[in-house]
Amino acid sequence: MHRLELTKPDGRKLTLYSRAPIDSNLQAPSPFSDPLQGAPHLRWHPLRGEWVTYAAHRQNRTFLPPPEYNPLAVTTSADNPTEVPAGAWDIAVFDNRFPSLGVPQGAEPPPSLIVPTAPANGHCEVVVFTQDPKGALGRLPLDHIELLLQVWGDRTERLGTRPDIRYVLPFENRGAEVGVTLHHPHGQIYAYPVVPPVPARMAQVASEHYAQHGHGPLAEMIRSERETGERVLYEGRHAIAFVPACARYPYEVWIAPIREVPGFAQLESAERADLARALKTVLLKYDGLWERPFPYLMAWYQAPTDGDPHLGMHLHAELWPPYRTKDRLKYLAGTELAAGFFAMDALPEDKVKELQAVEVSL
Amino acid sequence: MHRLELTKPDGRKLTLYSRAPIDSNLQAPSPFSDPLQGAPHLRWHPLRGEWVTYAAHRQNRTFLPPPEYNPLAVTTSADNPTEVPAGAWDIAVFDNRFPSLGVPQGAEPPPSLIVPTAPANGHCEVVVFTQDPKGALGRLPLDHIELLLQVWGDRTERLGTRPDIRYVLPFENRGAEVGVTLHHPHGQIYAYPVVPPVPARMAQVASEHYAQHGHGPLAEMIRSERETGERVLYEGRHAIAFVPACARYPYEVWIAPIREVPGFAQLESAERADLARALKTVLLKYDGLWERPFPYLMAWYQAPTDGDPHLGMHLHAELWPPYRTKDRLKYLAGTELAAGFFAMDALPEDKVKELQAVEVSL
Repeated sequence: MHRLELTKPDGRKLTLYSRAPIDSNLQAPSPFSDPLQGAPHLRWHPLRGEWVTYAAHRQNRTFLPPPEYNPLAVTTSADNPTEVPAGAWDIAVFDNRFPSLGVPQGAEPPPSLIVPTAPANGHCEVVVFTQDPKGALGRLPLDHIELLLQVWGDRTERLGTRPDIRYVLPFENRGAEVGVTLHHPHGQIYAYPVVPPVPARMAQVASEHYAQHGHGPLAEMIRSERETGERVLYEGRHAIAFVPACARYPYEVWIAPIREVPGFAQLESAERADLARALKTVLLKYDGLWERPFPYLMAWYQAPTDGDPHLGMHLHAELWPPYRTKDRLKYLAGTELAAGFFAMDALPEDKVKELQAVEVSL
Repeated sequence: MHRLELTKPDGRKLTLYSRAPIDSNLQAPSPFSDPLQGAPHLRWHPLRGEWVTYAAHRQNRTFLPPPEYNPLAVTTSADNPTEVPAGAWDIAVFDNRFPSLGVPQGAEPPPSLIVPTAPANGHCEVVVFTQDPKGALGRLPLDHIELLLQVWGDRTERLGTRPDIRYVLPFENRGAEVGVTLHHPHGQIYAYPVVPPVPARMAQVASEHYAQHGHGPLAEMIRSERETGERVLYEGRHAIAFVPACARYPYEVWIAPIREVPGFAQLESAERADLARALKTVLLKYDGLWERPFPYLMAWYQAPTDGDPHLGMHLHAELWPPYRTKDRLKYLAGTELAAGFFAMDALPEDKVKELQAVEVSL
């Protein structure tokens, strides 16, 4: 992995990653010249016992690009800088210009309110998966996907060692159906000042399971899914992909290393290679299912970086597509959002057959 | 409140409620004649530590109505029965024909899988708010809305006393934006065999707060919101509506009795009357904001019915509209769904002003 760290004219960081050496003369462009404005703040939700972040400055964007402008494409003219330079690199990571988390130096303190407030520490990054605006994560070469897994590990280490960051979540929202308007292949990384509710719950459940069984709940599920094979989409020496028996979305898929690895940074290279094969297999099956780009939310869960051991936490991706069938969306409504109790009208054992039937070549 | 309990030809229950006496000769129609098919089952999600319900029979609907057919309109011809009879009644409650929860007698046991499974006990009801298919909850007369609050109390008592039911959640999904295809004013009631994750968390947080302060967190918020008044939309002697300081949706509103009442069944009649005024005020403001029907998810949180005291739980509605601005939806994506960490780019103090400016007459 080759890496080049740069600073944009507005002070934001840009890191370029590549399988091959990178020209160290590359410059970091920015569509913005003035430094970041405003600071997000956290408010405590007294009924749910969780933090919510408020970034009102996101509304005050001084820059509204025309719809055909792609800020993630490489800069081709100095008059019209984008977020990334032209040149030989594979993956770019830069600080989000309108972050939900991350307080600039000298920012105003959070407001005083009827609920507790705090500075919204943390960090938000954008990850450009490829220079090709028409590409897709699943269509990248395997060694490019492997590089992405390395990049996620590098970002997790860099962010996770910061004392103000307790959880690092890489995710991709793909498709207009999940609210994405920018189709250049990219993801995001949110680095949180607290362990957010969902991974906090997972870590608690995992550590209870570990205390009782000596391994986490995902390791146990993987062993069982491998034994039955019924819901498996990919199985290699080191990685597996399957529709979990407890899927909450009709086409939900999990991807994981077979070994109980807490995060990207602890993957060995053979594991990373196999995980790339598992990920590519799933994404090609998704796009092949209806022969059109398949929208999804993909989140990679890792152990928190708060210094606790978090035994039983097991790196894995959960992919949640919004479709129930080819032309019907699954809306999250009363029971899912208000109760947190998911209702499915499709069985994982049926849905997996549709994906198993899609042939792909890596 | 007048009530008439009936049984449909397919065995489902129908209860009619009215402000005036109801003709006891009314018959319960049903679009279906055969008894309910199939049984939902629960599967344990080992990573999140929660149950998911699977109702595969929902896909096997033998009856697909034409789009113009409204099963919630009163039956006008014996050849074309709907879910409710013609006659003088205000509100109808009937068993959902395709429930996500509720196991018919003699149903097959849940499948044996690699994760724990269980029968999906519980109950799902549909609540028809009015006979007028073009109406809206917010446009009903105040005493009709009061009746609905009584009906929710009656259903909570009837369902909550069943030993297999631990939580009763009345909710309304309104608008195509939240997935609703049937525009006749109606809501649903889910009665769960467990306390679902969100109210379970609320109950835990509330009881910890109560142990420390002698009242729940909502009582404290209401006191503070009344003191500042900044985010208040309605304040009566017994009820209040406000945009909470910790709103997770741009136009989020909470409605609550001022007294710390655990559920609908414990409301006094003056409280119910004022709560109806608060609810009507909010819904009229919503529809008045952009002079079009305003979509939302409205959930009414009550104390669990599992027999524990649940001190500090405080009946209230949370309304979550899906819009950020007049023409932009707020999508729940990476951080909200995967982390459970909400990010807002609007401040409650700004959004409330838009709603405060909408004048309504009850």
